[in-house]
Amino acid sequence: MRQETIGNIVGNIRRRLEALREMTATPGEGVTRFPFTEEARQASEYLMGEMRAMGLAVRLDPSGSVIGRLEGERPETVMMGSHLDSVLHGGAYDGAAGVVCALEAARMLVEDGGQPCLSVEVIATNDEEGSRFRTGLFSGKFMLGQLSPDDLKRQHDADGVSVYDAMRQYGLDPEAAASPAREDLRAFLEVHIEQGPVLEAEELQIGAVSTIVGIRRARVVIGGRADHVGTMPMDMRQDALETAARVIAGLGDAARSLPNAVATVGNLTVEPNIMNIIPSRVAFTVDFRGVRRADIDAQYGGLLAALERETALMRTRYSIEELLDAAPVDMRPELRQAILASCARRGYAAREIVSGAGHDAQVFGARIPAAMIFVPSKGGRSHCPEEESSVEDLARASLVLRDLLNDILEGRAAL
Amino acid sequence: MRQETIGNIVGNIRRRLEALREMTATPGEGVTRFPFTEEARQASEYLMGEMRAMGLAVRLDPSGSVIGRLEGERPETVMMGSHLDSVLHGGAYDGAAGVVCALEAARMLVEDGGQPCLSVEVIATNDEEGSRFRTGLFSGKFMLGQLSPDDLKRQHDADGVSVYDAMRQYGLDPEAAASPAREDLRAFLEVHIEQGPVLEAEELQIGAVSTIVGIRRARVVIGGRADHVGTMPMDMRQDALETAARVIAGLGDAARSLPNAVATVGNLTVEPNIMNIIPSRVAFTVDFRGVRRADIDAQYGGLLAALERETALMRTRYSIEELLDAAPVDMRPELRQAILASCARRGYAAREIVSGAGHDAQVFGARIPAAMIFVPSKGGRSHCPEEESSVEDLARASLVLRDLLNDILEGRAAL
Repeated sequence: MRQETIGNIVGNIRRRLEALREMTATPGEGVTRFPFTEEARQASEYLMGEMRAMGLAVRLDPSGSVIGRLEGERPETVMMGSHLDSVLHGGAYDGAAGVVCALEAARMLVEDGGQPCLSVEVIATNDEEGSRFRTGLFSGKFMLGQLSPDDLKRQHDADGVSVYDAMRQYGLDPEAAASPAREDLRAFLEVHIEQGPVLEAEELQIGAVSTIVGIRRARVVIGGRADHVGTMPMDMRQDALETAARVIAGLGDAARSLPNAVATVGNLTVEPNIMNIIPSRVAFTVDFRGVRRADIDAQYGGLLAALERETALMRTRYSIEELLDAAPVDMRPELRQAILASCARRGYAAREIVSGAGHDAQVFGARIPAAMIFVPSKGGRSHCPEEESSVEDLARASLVLRDLLNDILEGRAAL
Repeated sequence: MRQETIGNIVGNIRRRLEALREMTATPGEGVTRFPFTEEARQASEYLMGEMRAMGLAVRLDPSGSVIGRLEGERPETVMMGSHLDSVLHGGAYDGAAGVVCALEAARMLVEDGGQPCLSVEVIATNDEEGSRFRTGLFSGKFMLGQLSPDDLKRQHDADGVSVYDAMRQYGLDPEAAASPAREDLRAFLEVHIEQGPVLEAEELQIGAVSTIVGIRRARVVIGGRADHVGTMPMDMRQDALETAARVIAGLGDAARSLPNAVATVGNLTVEPNIMNIIPSRVAFTVDFRGVRRADIDAQYGGLLAALERETALMRTRYSIEELLDAAPVDMRPELRQAILASCARRGYAAREIVSGAGHDAQVFGARIPAAMIFVPSKGGRSHCPEEESSVEDLARASLVLRDLLNDILEGRAAL
């Protein structure tokens, strides 16, 4: 393996991130790159050009991912990359950073020469965020056979366009979702920005993800009665917002009592929402995350108990609809160890870290060995135009990814 | 005093309420009669016709109230009535019921013949609700010299029209606000629907208002930070909605610990209000009411303490703006006794009751003896098209009002 200078890698990373950040539907207001759009096509063609230039065999896969392949001695494949799409008014690093790091690791592999024992693919996955269709993790699910053409007809964007129709308009065949799952994948490796404040706060340069948290997400509706705030005595009113506040007030402390758990109410609406009328209806979402299935279920159970208790006390009613139930996914311990060993050799400050956000690696990691390398996010900011990570940290992540790939290809990291 | 049949009074009340309910900007969707509109003019002209027909001297006062006057032996005046305006999509009884009851009491007085010792006015006041300009209690404040022409220039409706300009367009002179206050008023008597559930729940026909509650109302803004719900650990996040919920959750119990106190958060908005982003800003209104100044202030102090405590715990910030501070106003004890005595003579089930809503009687009651007679509201509903009170109860209230007026005119109820 040749010795690379950080400077060369930094230059390539900076150049490609700057190119990609311009491929947005919202110039000057962050990166908005939704799936099956002109921005997505522009970015895909750009990446294909970069991949071809370094000697990879390039294709658009049936899900709309961009893939550059280096054929190995065997057809079994180690895949590395991240996603190409973004949220609305997102940043230039979420997803794109992992793609350009994988490109650099592939470039170094190619420049080292020789045919690797396994095939290697660099991938820029499609629709990981799910911002357009409220889907997400699309390419991984697609290539692992977890979606049907009917699924693609069911999900629509804000204009009523289905995933199915958007794919056809983009020149893809949505019926390919019925094709057999890819069976050649042997590992999935992803570099990603942390999107949180922990690595920066601890002055670390690299995080080796231990677990991608599980999520249970629900929508709760509290029903009360709209009455005059002055004339309805406290012991006769049915205040939907008082009920909701009493339920929500306890969720944070419950999460704080568990390791690496979080609970958030991000969306809440009040009806009629008038200063002098008692709220008759409050709807809110709850998002519970944790590294252990039992912790997440305990939080969810606590919510149900609070809803029962407080609606009885407040003479109100509730309904709850579960929106999502995703189990925690552990990254492969042998690969985590290889990442930390690489960091130790190179002198990078690193530790294991939980991923509180979902990633493509969780879809692959439920089936095949997977690993994630985190780089610090400035101020912990993400999903906003201010999102930023140091290109030096991204260069370090590229070198660690190259080391990890080497460990896998040379059999030092057991799969 | 002649004996009146309930049937005759019921007929007059029903006829006038049915006429007034058609004078609305929202036909088929409740009564919407804002001040200085065509609906207000139509209703005013209708009432003037009814007043003239019973022999009263009719005028539009400088605030846009309709007044019908019966000149007594002395110019000092006992005023009785309620308001002509409504909220948006309100009911047919709030305000109008008190006007038609006062008309009936005046009719009975006129038909009894002879000149009363004091002058008597029936009034349909203007802009009591304040729904158009976020003002309220307008006519009382206007005639008691509590408003200046400059005040009228400062308040605007949703279209940017000031009270000042709306008055001019309506044919009134807003500069009249600078005229001296009326000094001739000796008492103010108002019949009103309860707008709450208490009288109905206790199967009572009449309530004699003891106190109109005081109100302190504030707008609170909690400032936090928008971060990813998964990647921001509980002990580093600044969740504006968790903070707000912890503050709001305690307000109800604090109110329940005080006699006749209420606390309500009616309006609450969350930003950015997205399921997977921690809320960065929550704004809400708080409305505290009570019959004792000290109770209201204790509630307000409790809010401030909770804001200090919870923002410190949650690493968030707050600001608070006081929107209203109105002291409780006691109705004159001698007049309350006269109401209860009339009910006892007539066999009506009655008791004293707190008014949790504001009324014109509170403006007058802070200066001159005032009394309010409540009738039950079906289901406690008010400020909605479903608002309803029994016309038989309103007829009873008219007779009690007539008795009260008689007690005053004949010197049995000391002023």
